[in-house]
Amino acid sequence: MSDQKTALIVTAHPGDFVWRAGGAIALHVRKGYRVKIVCLSFGERGESQFAWKTAGVAMDEVKAQRKAEAEEAAAILGASIEFFDAGDYPLKLTEAMFDRMVDIYREEKPAFVLTHALADPYNMDHPEATRFAQDARIIAQAAGHKPDPSRAYSAPPVFLFEPHQPEQCDFKPNVILNITDVWETKRKAFEVLAAQKHLWDYYTRVALNRGVQGGRNSGRAMTYGEAYQRVFPMIVEELA
Amino acid sequence: MSDQKTALIVTAHPGDFVWRAGGAIALHVRKGYRVKIVCLSFGERGESQFAWKTAGVAMDEVKAQRKAEAEEAAAILGASIEFFDAGDYPLKLTEAMFDRMVDIYREEKPAFVLTHALADPYNMDHPEATRFAQDARIIAQAAGHKPDPSRAYSAPPVFLFEPHQPEQCDFKPNVILNITDVWETKRKAFEVLAAQKHLWDYYTRVALNRGVQGGRNSGRAMTYGEAYQRVFPMIVEELA
Amino acid sequence: MSDQKTALIVTAHPGDFVWRAGGAIALHVRKGYRVKIVCLSFGERGESQFAWKTAGVAMDEVKAQRKAEAEEAAAILGASIEFFDAGDYPLKLTEAMFDRMVDIYREEKPAFVLTHALADPYNMDHPEATRFAQDARIIAQAAGHKPDPSRAYSAPPVFLFEPHQPEQCDFKPNVILNITDVWETKRKAFEVLAAQKHLWDYYTRVALNRGVQGGRNSGRAMTYGEAYQRVFPMIVEELA
Amino acid sequence: MSDQKTALIVTAHPGDFVWRAGGAIALHVRKGYRVKIVCLSFGERGESQFAWKTAGVAMDEVKAQRKAEAEEAAAILGASIEFFDAGDYPLKLTEAMFDRMVDIYREEKPAFVLTHALADPYNMDHPEATRFAQDARIIAQAAGHKPDPSRAYSAPPVFLFEPHQPEQCDFKPNVILNITDVWETKRKAFEVLAAQKHLWDYYTRVALNRGVQGGRNSGRAMTYGEAYQRVFPMIVEELA
Amino acid sequence: MSDQKTALIVTAHPGDFVWRAGGAIALHVRKGYRVKIVCLSFGERGESQFAWKTAGVAMDEVKAQRKAEAEEAAAILGASIEFFDAGDYPLKLTEAMFDRMVDIYREEKPAFVLTHALADPYNMDHPEATRFAQDARIIAQAAGHKPDPSRAYSAPPVFLFEPHQPEQCDFKPNVILNITDVWETKRKAFEVLAAQKHLWDYYTRVALNRGVQGGRNSGRAMTYGEAYQRVFPMIVEELA
Amino acid sequence: MSDQKTALIVTAHPGDFVWRAGGAIALHVRKGYRVKIVCLSFGERGESQFAWKTAGVAMDEVKAQRKAEAEEAAAILGASIEFFDAGDYPLKLTEAMFDRMVDIYREEKPAFVLTHALADPYNMDHPEATRFAQDARIIAQAAGHKPDPSRAYSAPPVFLFEPHQPEQCDFKPNVILNITDVWETKRKAFEVLAAQKHLWDYYTRVALNRGVQGGRNSGRAMTYGEAYQRVFPMIVEELA
Repeated sequence: MSDQKTALIVTAHPGDFVWRAGGAIALHVRKGYRVKIVCLSFGERGESQFAWKTAGVAMDEVKAQRKAEAEEAAAILGASIEFFDAGDYPLKLTEAMFDRMVDIYREEKPAFVLTHALADPYNMDHPEATRFAQDARIIAQAAGHKPDPSRAYSAPPVFLFEPHQPEQCDFKPNVILNITDVWETKRKAFEVLAAQKHLWDYYTRVALNRGVQGGRNSGRAMTYGEAYQRVFPMIVEELA
Repeated sequence: MSDQKTALIVTAHPGDFVWRAGGAIALHVRKGYRVKIVCLSFGERGESQFAWKTAGVAMDEVKAQRKAEAEEAAAILGASIEFFDAGDYPLKLTEAMFDRMVDIYREEKPAFVLTHALADPYNMDHPEATRFAQDARIIAQAAGHKPDPSRAYSAPPVFLFEPHQPEQCDFKPNVILNITDVWETKRKAFEVLAAQKHLWDYYTRVALNRGVQGGRNSGRAMTYGEAYQRVFPMIVEELA
Repeated sequence: MSDQKTALIVTAHPGDFVWRAGGAIALHVRKGYRVKIVCLSFGERGESQFAWKTAGVAMDEVKAQRKAEAEEAAAILGASIEFFDAGDYPLKLTEAMFDRMVDIYREEKPAFVLTHALADPYNMDHPEATRFAQDARIIAQAAGHKPDPSRAYSAPPVFLFEPHQPEQCDFKPNVILNITDVWETKRKAFEVLAAQKHLWDYYTRVALNRGVQGGRNSGRAMTYGEAYQRVFPMIVEELA
Repeated sequence: MSDQKTALIVTAHPGDFVWRAGGAIALHVRKGYRVKIVCLSFGERGESQFAWKTAGVAMDEVKAQRKAEAEEAAAILGASIEFFDAGDYPLKLTEAMFDRMVDIYREEKPAFVLTHALADPYNMDHPEATRFAQDARIIAQAAGHKPDPSRAYSAPPVFLFEPHQPEQCDFKPNVILNITDVWETKRKAFEVLAAQKHLWDYYTRVALNRGVQGGRNSGRAMTYGEAYQRVFPMIVEELA
Repeated sequence: MSDQKTALIVTAHPGDFVWRAGGAIALHVRKGYRVKIVCLSFGERGESQFAWKTAGVAMDEVKAQRKAEAEEAAAILGASIEFFDAGDYPLKLTEAMFDRMVDIYREEKPAFVLTHALADPYNMDHPEATRFAQDARIIAQAAGHKPDPSRAYSAPPVFLFEPHQPEQCDFKPNVILNITDVWETKRKAFEVLAAQKHLWDYYTRVALNRGVQGGRNSGRAMTYGEAYQRVFPMIVEELA
Repeated sequence: MSDQKTALIVTAHPGDFVWRAGGAIALHVRKGYRVKIVCLSFGERGESQFAWKTAGVAMDEVKAQRKAEAEEAAAILGASIEFFDAGDYPLKLTEAMFDRMVDIYREEKPAFVLTHALADPYNMDHPEATRFAQDARIIAQAAGHKPDPSRAYSAPPVFLFEPHQPEQCDFKPNVILNITDVWETKRKAFEVLAAQKHLWDYYTRVALNRGVQGGRNSGRAMTYGEAYQRVFPMIVEELA
């Protein structure tokens, strides 16, 4: 294993990693991280309204279409992507998937993990994905799970990304990441999601307004931001 | 499908729709709504103490007895009722039941849904029923679930009804419905639940006190009220 | 007193009624309400950075300048405005001002009141303004305050408007008002606040995103929205 | 000082100690406690609607009338009462009153204190009374306040009594006191408050429903209850 | 069944009943209670780091080792122990185990139950154990579950014990138990857990600091304390 | 003004900066920061029990004694200290003090501020000190307060330090500072507070347990820690 730092993103559907974490992915790739996305479903049932407008379209076609989009978006952002094909609305996560998720934590030893907010009354797949990501993060620490005394693994910090309606999801951002330098890349990834064109503008506005907030809170100029909620305490050697 | 508006009530046990939502049911029936109750169990194990006092009574007898009561109460209130027979204490909700619940949302296209509070440390069936009702409401929106491009469905507002000990269930009422005009009907439905006579008075007092609160908050006279907690933001064209 | 309905807005600084409630003001004016704004300060110390960039500018000049702007913005929105000149950063609200505020409630008998969120760690004037508005609303009910047995007054519902960083202020919107029809008017009022041009776009984005959320929650098209948090339970005769 | 245990009640207005704590007062008097009520105002402005219906009635008359009622109710319950005459709506508590309040804590050395809930959006006098009662309880501990090395004082447990709309006041009861044995006394005290006859029934229903909840939570029969929220942890030698 | 009072402890792993409830167990044993521990797993995968340091160690060996320790610790504290062998990280609780848990409630008729905090972002076994303990407590009340009209059972109070990082688990202690008299016994039980020597001191410090807090809140001397969060309201006949 | 970074600590009483922030002070001094403590009172009434045991001691003597201690402790930690002599139990903060506090923010331009938790039911001076520190931090930003267009000031991040009973004060630490390297200095400052010897051990245990938690959350060794709650979002260029 090289010294390259890694980051892990766990999302329920393809759109999520683009809208919510596309900036963080592109930014850390640019900083030299290896970034891996675990995409639990293709969003084939619940987030593909456009595809289903064609009468008689088959589930496999929709899945293939969304998979191609997700791969293209991940490539633009510079990340690798692994699909779990768990189905969506609702996610049907199996023990085998959980086992694979634990292995990924141990393989990647990520410096941080990004996943969904803890609650979302509009979408039960989102908290389910978070629970899955967080449980696997803990099991990866268990010495008795596929024991190997030589292994070193330390559970990474978890950041929750911004849901569609933050206040309804009890999302309280305590971190704003400056994504100004990679905005064009994030925006390019938006454009892969051609069927959700109305969300391009929505999430551009979100990024701009988080940028204004970031500038206001730091006194430093910032144009585009992504908001996160850090789950565990931060351990520091200096406060400023 | 006619232009008649509809309402949907999802309850864990028969008593719940009587004590907690009987006024809303009777009132909206009177206003011309078609109201449908989905009753997930007969309350046969956990809410039939009286029936089990007879030594040797069989489960089927208890269920039949509670079913008859529930049907009679629903008839008094003017609603149709569908039983899921999921068992109670605890509810054992299956995928087939979930599938049926989703279909009901699409069939009824309810103008609103009433179900249990989000938490109840005294009764784990109640939050489970809410979760079930809310998840199905979302799945019914998924274009890829039994796809049919011609279908129109919009997820209805959700109101949580008042649990037995509101403060212990983190229930915070933000809506009080004036049920004065249908009080006699609600009370008549109480009387079907002959074995729970002590609750007749309890819930009469609840209705009277919510009525006082309704009057106090509106400046308009009200005698009987039912309290609800609206889950999603209200979209309005005027504030008053 | 005529039958005209009235609305009352209580804000700490001039910008607040424009950014946060400009849509509600213009909309209810269009619906025939008489709308009155109580503006507690001119924002002369804390919200006039631009004016203070001129070396040697006097406090009175700054106040006059901000007052003129506030009057112009109120006129565009169609509301009357009364200034309390309480000073800002911090507000210094006196007993005489409180007494006047109580009188205004009794004179206006508003159908609703709009004021600030309950908390704001970025600006202590905002929660202070809310406290002032809410305390006066209660005192206006006290039969022994300037007693007059013939008077009829009922405390109106209170809606909190959206702060600059909603999640940091524990703001949880439960009402979204459709302001699409009056958007141009609200935007025109923005433009009076020439020194805060960067906020024009910020609050345009807020309005557009609240509009998307309003559409998503109602299933009805909406372009521009304003979010509010209703404080007291709503008393209703029908749930849908 | 005798060995008699004492209890202290701090209320904003006369009605409060009757509706909210009348059972606790009568019960502890019966158990041999000396109970003292500190009544911060006469409720003359905000809680005397009936009195003000008479045109031309003077403030002093209203105060005298409410004082007589409060004294009669206290006598029925068996408690002594001290008035602070701070005015109501809003309370105007002075330093001298605070100083007196501290002295009372030291004189009485109460085994417990009862006062208002921490929040009440309907009545700003209530949280103000609590703040006053709690601050004085702490100052009474300060060795440098009227120093007297021989004095022994230990800050007593605080119980908040039930507000008119518990959920709106974030009141979460964690103690239910069985007041069945003194119910008739509490009810008799209600009847002194002749002008608020509609509240007699309201608070009788509250007591009955808290009684049902008490029975449900303990498995022991109880008819009438009063709910309290204990503020500080309980220190115990046994859990059951 | 004798008149002996009983207590029930439900823990996910062996360490939990020692660190978190060892004082309560020893104290109530000394007071004459029969205390039963239900230990859902042996902590074999997630809480046996030391054992897994030996390359090639088998799961059965680790389980046997941890079982022996748990039995020894329970014996020192004076409690009986029943293992469910549900596996850990994550717990895999079956219907048969749930059925057994319900039977235990009915057999023991405990005066109180101790179990884990409601949330623990560091360990998903802990909230799962609580859910299991609380659900079984409720089912044990259901008249239709293994009906027996002659049975008397009343759901006991539940106390949550202190998690490793209280604030991160939303743990709010409202009871501090004085365990000074049995401290030596609790400490002796620590020493059975030889592989977790660093936790001996950690939990000794927790006990000492809870003791200081207990003294501060009661005005009575206390050296060692255990903190608990009571879930349901307390029903009392006297407040002091 | 030099390039030296600065830090500001605002405390109600002398003990607070020692027990709660002594590590942060010593650590940042060692890192080259200029650290300034604003000590609002001498703790002469409420936190000087020992001094008041001498019958007839005068207030001035107690104040002088506590002042000397505070100066000695600040010197050991390497910070300068300014006293406001506001009195304690309760603090009586004047406008002049507020004005001075604002000036200090502008003079120091601190990189961060440390102050008390937002709530403390055991000590009303603590939340009052926080409110004072936070309000002044905001006023210092107001361009119209002592206007000077050439001035640059940006409101610094605020960290709340750990109160005596964290859970009762709704304190949720999200930062743990490693103070291992300066522990001996912090401990030496403890020893100046000779009259509070029992707290030396209490806060040594707190530091050790926060150290264990810091190690657990970071995977890096740490012996002594101080917990803080960051109030405003953190603005970052990288997540790990």
